[in-house]
Amino acid sequence: RSGEMAKLTKLLDNEAFQAYATYATIVLLKMMLMSLLTVYFRITRKAFANPEDVATFGRGETAKKYLRTDADVERVRRGHLNDLENIVPFLGIGLLYALSGPELSTALLHFRIFAGARVLHTFAYLIPLPQPSRGLSWAAGYAVTISMAYKVLKTALYL
Amino acid sequence: RSGEMAKLTKLLDNEAFQAYATYATIVLLKMMLMSLLTVYFRITRKAFANPEDVATFGRGETAKKYLRTDADVERVRRGHLNDLENIVPFLGIGLLYALSGPELSTALLHFRIFAGARVLHTFAYLIPLPQPSRGLSWAAGYAVTISMAYKVLKTALYL
Amino acid sequence: RSGEMAKLTKLLDNEAFQAYATYATIVLLKMMLMSLLTVYFRITRKAFANPEDVATFGRGETAKKYLRTDADVERVRRGHLNDLENIVPFLGIGLLYALSGPELSTALLHFRIFAGARVLHTFAYLIPLPQPSRGLSWAAGYAVTISMAYKVLKTALYL
Repeated sequence: RSGEMAKLTKLLDNEAFQAYATYATIVLLKMMLMSLLTVYFRITRKAFANPEDVATFGRGETAKKYLRTDADVERVRRGHLNDLENIVPFLGIGLLYALSGPELSTALLHFRIFAGARVLHTFAYLIPLPQPSRGLSWAAGYAVTISMAYKVLKTALYL
Repeated sequence: RSGEMAKLTKLLDNEAFQAYATYATIVLLKMMLMSLLTVYFRITRKAFANPEDVATFGRGETAKKYLRTDADVERVRRGHLNDLENIVPFLGIGLLYALSGPELSTALLHFRIFAGARVLHTFAYLIPLPQPSRGLSWAAGYAVTISMAYKVLKTALYL
Repeated sequence: RSGEMAKLTKLLDNEAFQAYATYATIVLLKMMLMSLLTVYFRITRKAFANPEDVATFGRGETAKKYLRTDADVERVRRGHLNDLENIVPFLGIGLLYALSGPELSTALLHFRIFAGARVLHTFAYLIPLPQPSRGLSWAAGYAVTISMAYKVLKTALYL
């Protein structure tokens, strides 16, 4: 048993894999923050999606008016969905990339650009910053993911 | 070849990793159930999103009236999206957590709470149960994921 | 250090894992294409979601009319979300399946059907093809994922 444990931990002794673990966790935590922001904006803007969420505001018409969409809530939700659309590819391709034996410095460069780009994207979306801030930060994360996918396919292609 | 196979299977000989494999598969199957529920509600409520989906109901105005949103369909879809937003972090962080050499009993506790919380969340959303049922079940899964992320970063931090 | 690297790369020396890496990367790249298609349709149909995205079209009412939904844009977005809902389970369950020591030929069959089904699903959604094209391609990917989940649970069940 403890021999097995040791063997498993080996994967996390590899520095490129440690870097993946670190940055994957960071971008996932950042994405999870979007849930809290949605809750925050739903409460402060009083804009909810479910009848049971507005029951404490009273019954009937009084509560019903809080069942509405709000521009700030929808903006956070679009940012959250954009995170999902981009972080899911990073999680999958990044894991395989970390296992493909990349140079540590190259791997770190990819992971740091991706994480930085997603943080910038969130600020650009929520402040919001004028375009092309959001577009460019999205493109940077996208390009880095493509670059990792290329390395994975070059190393492991088996059709 | 068969030596390699054996080595690979080793990862799944580790009990904490087996537990991860089991609970990750369970929550993903539960999430996949939401697709079937969406199909079920779209058909019984006759509420579709695409013109080609209502073509069997006839042509023109007869079919067009089924291109509409329905409260039950939208409720399932919100539950499905909430699953995605929470199960994706669990998949990524949970995998790294399982590789970080956790105590088996601690790992099981995390995985069981997460899976239980997501099942409760689905019932709370679909019945629906009065709040804060849905809120609390969401928070339990969220907290467990944060706890695993802390362990991953403590074990593997490499910035 | 280089011994560790070698050990890591071992995972990608296994042919079933290589096949997983290849097909997982392919379906993720296909999913990422949906982002580019969304951008393409937003620009050609002039249908945007954020005020800052239409600022270059001028100020006030001139720009505001481009803040609208468009049938083609919404269609791509539904396809993208359907990808997320189905590719996330494939990523997680497929990874565990590849680690569960499947026969190489069986594994390839699963991965090829899934990837083929998702490509067909995209064409069926975007052209669009008459139903049940989209429904059947969705079901094929769904069934293959269930089949892999069964193998994972049979190999690794630890509750």
